[in-house]
Amino acid sequence: MHFDPAEALSREEIASLQTARLRETIERAARSPFYARVLAEAGVGPDDIKSPQDIRRLPLTTKQHLRASYPYGLVTVPIADLVRLHASSGTTGSPTAVFYTERDIRTWASLMARCMHMAGVRREDVFQNMSGYGLFTGGLGIHYGAEALGCLTIPAGAGNSRRQVKLIRDFSVSVVHIIPSYALHFADFLQSEGISPASLPIRIALIGAEPHTEETRRRIEGLYGCRAFNSYGLSEMNGPGVAFECTEQQGMHLWEDAFIAEILDPNTFEPVPDGELGELVLTTLTREGMPVIRYRTRDLTRFIPGQCACGRAHRRIDRIAGRTDDMLIIKGVNIYPMQVEQILMGMPEVGSNYLIELTRDGHMDQFTVKVEITEDFFVEDMRALNALRGRIVTKLRDELLITPRVELVQHGSLPVTEGKAQRVSDLRPKD
Amino acid sequence: MHFDPAEALSREEIASLQTARLRETIERAARSPFYARVLAEAGVGPDDIKSPQDIRRLPLTTKQHLRASYPYGLVTVPIADLVRLHASSGTTGSPTAVFYTERDIRTWASLMARCMHMAGVRREDVFQNMSGYGLFTGGLGIHYGAEALGCLTIPAGAGNSRRQVKLIRDFSVSVVHIIPSYALHFADFLQSEGISPASLPIRIALIGAEPHTEETRRRIEGLYGCRAFNSYGLSEMNGPGVAFECTEQQGMHLWEDAFIAEILDPNTFEPVPDGELGELVLTTLTREGMPVIRYRTRDLTRFIPGQCACGRAHRRIDRIAGRTDDMLIIKGVNIYPMQVEQILMGMPEVGSNYLIELTRDGHMDQFTVKVEITEDFFVEDMRALNALRGRIVTKLRDELLITPRVELVQHGSLPVTEGKAQRVSDLRPKD
Repeated sequence: MHFDPAEALSREEIASLQTARLRETIERAARSPFYARVLAEAGVGPDDIKSPQDIRRLPLTTKQHLRASYPYGLVTVPIADLVRLHASSGTTGSPTAVFYTERDIRTWASLMARCMHMAGVRREDVFQNMSGYGLFTGGLGIHYGAEALGCLTIPAGAGNSRRQVKLIRDFSVSVVHIIPSYALHFADFLQSEGISPASLPIRIALIGAEPHTEETRRRIEGLYGCRAFNSYGLSEMNGPGVAFECTEQQGMHLWEDAFIAEILDPNTFEPVPDGELGELVLTTLTREGMPVIRYRTRDLTRFIPGQCACGRAHRRIDRIAGRTDDMLIIKGVNIYPMQVEQILMGMPEVGSNYLIELTRDGHMDQFTVKVEITEDFFVEDMRALNALRGRIVTKLRDELLITPRVELVQHGSLPVTEGKAQRVSDLRPKD
Repeated sequence: MHFDPAEALSREEIASLQTARLRETIERAARSPFYARVLAEAGVGPDDIKSPQDIRRLPLTTKQHLRASYPYGLVTVPIADLVRLHASSGTTGSPTAVFYTERDIRTWASLMARCMHMAGVRREDVFQNMSGYGLFTGGLGIHYGAEALGCLTIPAGAGNSRRQVKLIRDFSVSVVHIIPSYALHFADFLQSEGISPASLPIRIALIGAEPHTEETRRRIEGLYGCRAFNSYGLSEMNGPGVAFECTEQQGMHLWEDAFIAEILDPNTFEPVPDGELGELVLTTLTREGMPVIRYRTRDLTRFIPGQCACGRAHRRIDRIAGRTDDMLIIKGVNIYPMQVEQILMGMPEVGSNYLIELTRDGHMDQFTVKVEITEDFFVEDMRALNALRGRIVTKLRDELLITPRVELVQHGSLPVTEGKAQRVSDLRPKD
């Protein structure tokens, strides 16, 4: 039933494994220039760890630390022992890089295969990876996982919708990995070609790499007649394969044999109670080439209390509610773009694309939401459109506590990206 | 000294291994619908093979056969046992697909690692793969090879020159995989940024995926101050890793433990004598999921007679001289674009880009070669330019036996692709 026996660990087994592996991780991390210094300053060593809770004695690591240590500051092995590098784009400014030994690549592939298997993917499936390859960990990460699971893997890469649909049909593709905004765009493309998305043989969609709402997931499932599973990961923790939904679809199991997860108040850095939103902080437990301790992911989520019906004891995190650094402050109110998406994607008249535009009028922030309307609904009846706009304004105001300006636009008129969607356009002058 | 003991096989050992593996291949191939029929019609079975020469009793396989058998006609195992698919673009028309089992992926990676090791790449090297990933076998093929060899592998992908150079510098990249036309373009880019290509830490460039001349190779070596090694492969035979240059740089060793190579007259299909040009015909000996027998590659090359100074007994093929189907017939004369490149790249005044343009004037073919001139040479002295043009016309006429029109154009004025270079623009009306 499980791909990996680690899926069946009890809470007690997880705790003792985490304790042992955290000690190893501290010992290993101390071989890197960065952690040698940081751990010495903190005065914490492996012997100070008696339980996973003792992780709180260790200092936090931030993106800034990774940037300042670029390129090799967190690496614990000779360069000759590394076999892979992934990096943030880094054309300008300060890039970050992550490194993997051969064992790290195998561990990562195995974690990813475990995720896919948990969602119901089997070696008999034909899997199309509709995600870009290269330095982005989402592409090669899921590719290696699918091969480790034994799926017939089609490395289609991103974009080229016409070729994607041909491959899906010719090879009876049953599982895809697709960015949620592209899944919606691809459905539009199919419909414009007279193809019903539900007519494709896809039974499972793995969606991740950008935050999205439950409403977006249900919409993707409805369009393709498939089940869509939420995926979570970040390059600093390998890439995808950190947490994944089981078939219950009630949150993502975070693999606690491979990571220690904390959810902290982003101001006090104290743990928040289970069920409350905070910043996810992660520690690698099995990484060899570049262990990372208490990394501030900037991702906002919560632990889902209680036991999952699937029986796995690995704790679940909720879908990402936003990022600590993509919070918008509009007229003094804190707003996350995900709140807007949640409202819009729950309305059947709303199409697959929208854009939040921020401008400043004198000293006043203007908050405009441009919303694409489905072709069926885009009629010339001004009264119906005005009524719809009114409903959207009301729903957004109730959720956000401020009143946005809403513009309804024709299907296909907002810019589309085939990578991660750009949902916010901040045109306010920089102070 | 060798990465794989198979590199040290003697001619006798190769012959006996080929005989045994050819028998296995025939037996395995007969499990596919296509070869079940073809081998039954030919009346040939494993027991008819007593030596590698008996391969001539088997029928040839062409690209047309692969197209007609799309998608699964040559597959010998259940789909559940396949883990990878690569395909030609196939947006329109008839695509082709190749399939790999898990063992096939491992064998391919090992062949590719053997090639890189033979060219002097070691696990201590930092390797940047500047080739596109996805369905193109050149990307993932070399990627897996580099990881199997144990290099720190940077999956940079194609394009984005600014990011490529940052990665090369930041991580002291010592080995790159790069398409030869992009290597020339990238050098232009570097120079335009005030960076000397020779100042980069690259010591080895693996170049392939498009035919190129010895002159182009020497030019790349001169620009980067590195050694450039020619790579040969095609998707139907896995992808890259079929043949590769050793440090002698006197032709590419074709791995005869994994492939049987024939060079045939493309009209009579009789073997040509060693040293003479013909069409390369290849048979897989170790492929499990999709064995291919006597595949007409359309690539023109010759066996290089004699023993290589490196001591490896695997026969060498010469760099690809062109393709049977890219031969141009101009004014009744057979011309290969490589002949033009060879002349141009041997002249220091000529830049990195050129274009062959074919037009028709009434019933007469017009054959124009547009040639970019290096910035140093592009002076306002009309007399010097005319003299250079005259020299180019003479050299091309001596090689091609017809007189082309030559236009000298300014550096950077011809179109550039970051994928395979388009060297021929055939504007003649279709008959």
